[in-house]
Amino acid sequence: MIPQDTIVALATPSGAGAIAVIRISGKEAISIAASVFQSVSGKDITRQRTHTLHLGHIVDGEKVLDQVLLSLFKGTNSYTGENTVEVSCHGSTYIQQQIIQLLLRKGCRMANAGEFTLRAFLNGKLDLSQAEAVADLIASDNEASHQIAMQQMRGGFSNEIAKLREELLNFASLIELELDFAEEDVEFADRTQFHELLNRIEFVLKRLIDSFAVGNVIKNGIPVAIVGEPNVGKSTLLNALLNEERAIVSDIAGTTRDTIEDELVINGIGFRFIDTAGIRETVDYVESIGIKKTFEKMEQAQVVVYLVDSSAILGENLNSVQVEIEKIRNQFPLKPLVIIGNKADKLTAAQTAQIQSEIPDILLISAKENISVEELKDKLLSFVNTGALRNNETIVTNTRHYDSLLKALEEIQKVQWGLQSNLSSDLMAIDIRQALYYFGEITGQVTNDELLGNIFANFCIGK
Amino acid sequence: MIPQDTIVALATPSGAGAIAVIRISGKEAISIAASVFQSVSGKDITRQRTHTLHLGHIVDGEKVLDQVLLSLFKGTNSYTGENTVEVSCHGSTYIQQQIIQLLLRKGCRMANAGEFTLRAFLNGKLDLSQAEAVADLIASDNEASHQIAMQQMRGGFSNEIAKLREELLNFASLIELELDFAEEDVEFADRTQFHELLNRIEFVLKRLIDSFAVGNVIKNGIPVAIVGEPNVGKSTLLNALLNEERAIVSDIAGTTRDTIEDELVINGIGFRFIDTAGIRETVDYVESIGIKKTFEKMEQAQVVVYLVDSSAILGENLNSVQVEIEKIRNQFPLKPLVIIGNKADKLTAAQTAQIQSEIPDILLISAKENISVEELKDKLLSFVNTGALRNNETIVTNTRHYDSLLKALEEIQKVQWGLQSNLSSDLMAIDIRQALYYFGEITGQVTNDELLGNIFANFCIGK
Repeated sequence: MIPQDTIVALATPSGAGAIAVIRISGKEAISIAASVFQSVSGKDITRQRTHTLHLGHIVDGEKVLDQVLLSLFKGTNSYTGENTVEVSCHGSTYIQQQIIQLLLRKGCRMANAGEFTLRAFLNGKLDLSQAEAVADLIASDNEASHQIAMQQMRGGFSNEIAKLREELLNFASLIELELDFAEEDVEFADRTQFHELLNRIEFVLKRLIDSFAVGNVIKNGIPVAIVGEPNVGKSTLLNALLNEERAIVSDIAGTTRDTIEDELVINGIGFRFIDTAGIRETVDYVESIGIKKTFEKMEQAQVVVYLVDSSAILGENLNSVQVEIEKIRNQFPLKPLVIIGNKADKLTAAQTAQIQSEIPDILLISAKENISVEELKDKLLSFVNTGALRNNETIVTNTRHYDSLLKALEEIQKVQWGLQSNLSSDLMAIDIRQALYYFGEITGQVTNDELLGNIFANFCIGK
Repeated sequence: MIPQDTIVALATPSGAGAIAVIRISGKEAISIAASVFQSVSGKDITRQRTHTLHLGHIVDGEKVLDQVLLSLFKGTNSYTGENTVEVSCHGSTYIQQQIIQLLLRKGCRMANAGEFTLRAFLNGKLDLSQAEAVADLIASDNEASHQIAMQQMRGGFSNEIAKLREELLNFASLIELELDFAEEDVEFADRTQFHELLNRIEFVLKRLIDSFAVGNVIKNGIPVAIVGEPNVGKSTLLNALLNEERAIVSDIAGTTRDTIEDELVINGIGFRFIDTAGIRETVDYVESIGIKKTFEKMEQAQVVVYLVDSSAILGENLNSVQVEIEKIRNQFPLKPLVIIGNKADKLTAAQTAQIQSEIPDILLISAKENISVEELKDKLLSFVNTGALRNNETIVTNTRHYDSLLKALEEIQKVQWGLQSNLSSDLMAIDIRQALYYFGEITGQVTNDELLGNIFANFCIGK
């Protein structure tokens, strides 16, 4: 299973930059690198210590390709657990290409997506859930998803699963031992303790399974539907919400991130805004396609924001707004609804009082003048269960883990039922083994090529 | 002049990738890095050797930002000649941002474009022309421009200039010494040797100045105007020319380069194709705007390719093609003209013979069937003077150097004239000093803040 060949790939983002890093890993990594590297100090890198840096030139015969800095990792003390060399070269795409081509000619093979991390897993440097966390970490674009991935990469999730697995394994051994003494009718496994353990496992599994809803939302952002007519100030509002974050980002030249339209991060939690048409304009043909679509989008959202221009809802318009709010409440009685009256800076004190008395739970803001925008943020955040996040609890974000946990829970519940019904040890042992199998699937004790292929295909090249 | 503060920037291309490198340089680089780094082995990095690598975590108080690999460069033994730390982190843009923000809070300042290389220059690690070559190296996208930049970065150009400067400086000192003994009418500087030196300097300067034409072409690509009606097969031809190169590029996933429309590299030399309308269609109104533009573009080009569909120029059309060729030749008698008859696979042997007898210098090819495309490449390359490149001669590509060389030549010619006219030593000394000044401008012995500002502003951040 342990691969024998030496792989190479660009590890830094593609394109030109000040520097680029080319990673080589495998048995021959150091000897291949040595065959194209001339140290400035004349040292032979094959005889240098691990974790050292060497300045020199990459040469292709007579031709000097670049002046580079070479990082040396010997033996198992590297990311992959194999000999590894990282070549830090000038960031021209031409140079990157030339060096990689040279290394391919010298016996390296182009790495597949995620192959460096796959090797780290195969060499026992990471378990499978930790390896998956590496990809999550690279994809993380806000504090919450970053924190979860970081915790998982550092083994938080694996440790919790591994501890339960070990306890269950002990009982499994005892129960299987009973099978050898089946005719003597002995019980090595204390049934009361076993019952307690199963309850504890069930509790933890249920908590992890429940956390997936939060985890999924954190990983993908919380969908928020904004219902509102044009010109009520939606983009001004989004800009006001974004303002603070943008200011931080633009402070740091060179770290521009790809902003996704209408996606923003508030206190480290991602929100995904779904734009919808208002429903007021279609009030006459309730069954029309327009309103159906709006309701569909509200259905998908976890929070609905109903945005109105407060300066335009005075007098008789106030009633039609109330009708619309009622309509949303009837359709989605359980979905959190935030009613925002924008442009509140245009209202007189009397008008403000009138609106507040007619629509008691309206939040009056001015996106333009940045009045009460912070309160809106707090309100949006209040719908997110960040308790687990704050308490550093393990949160499941990975669908594969979620599936295995569900299956493990099912098996544990079978064992519980078996215990209550005095099922024979041999039958119970089968269910326990099956539960252990699903635990092992998460951390990678149980695995197969297809599963590994699926997991690592989603990685980027060079990782 | 030597900066006292510590700078930080992302050194790898922006965007997400497997890893990203953040570079810190300055007096406090190591102590600032140490304040946010926890080594896995518990080592204190301030007490570790230079050129070593350390695995650990970047922490912001209690919060772990990332697991990173830290490269340590102590004292003058780094790229910048200052304490330098490179943080190799996971390539999420969020993580890059968080780490840079943390370092800014800990006392680093965001680096300006090219500031690391500027420091390398100020600390005497590179001369100015070498520093400029770093930017050229990063921008190089073909073999020729890469080779020139590499040679310049390794000091080829500086050495040549420095040698001449030193010899001239010797004579300058001798001549200035004569001024102290002006009343005694002595000559310390051997006029014959001086005359020889000036001739040698003039020769080298002229060669370097001449090389700028080649250098410029290599740096920016050779402009080729393609004149041809629509549907004669221009894009098929460009694809056929590109084919081989593309195959190499696509072999290496992750090193995709930004392809610029209609720009291609043949044997390491860049060609820039300028698309023009044919001139045949405007044959009736020679003074029309259309034909004027076509001629303007041909004027800018270094080579003109006239592309026709050979299967469509038989019979009476042959004559109008001949008229058009004649027109181009009359307009640009000195410009290389390549006449290509495409779609030659559709011709009978008799037709081929007819075309070749009527237009003797036509090159019959089939871009689609890849017939004679190699011959076209050879023909295009034959117009490029790559002799200097092959002989590893110094080639000037930088407009700033070119200007300084022109000015230095002017001064040297003044000195030559002065020597012939027996000009007094004090007047000659002024011209010599001026020539030395222009030499010094190239390598950076003579410099000022504005000049440095201009040069390094063109660098990318992080270099």
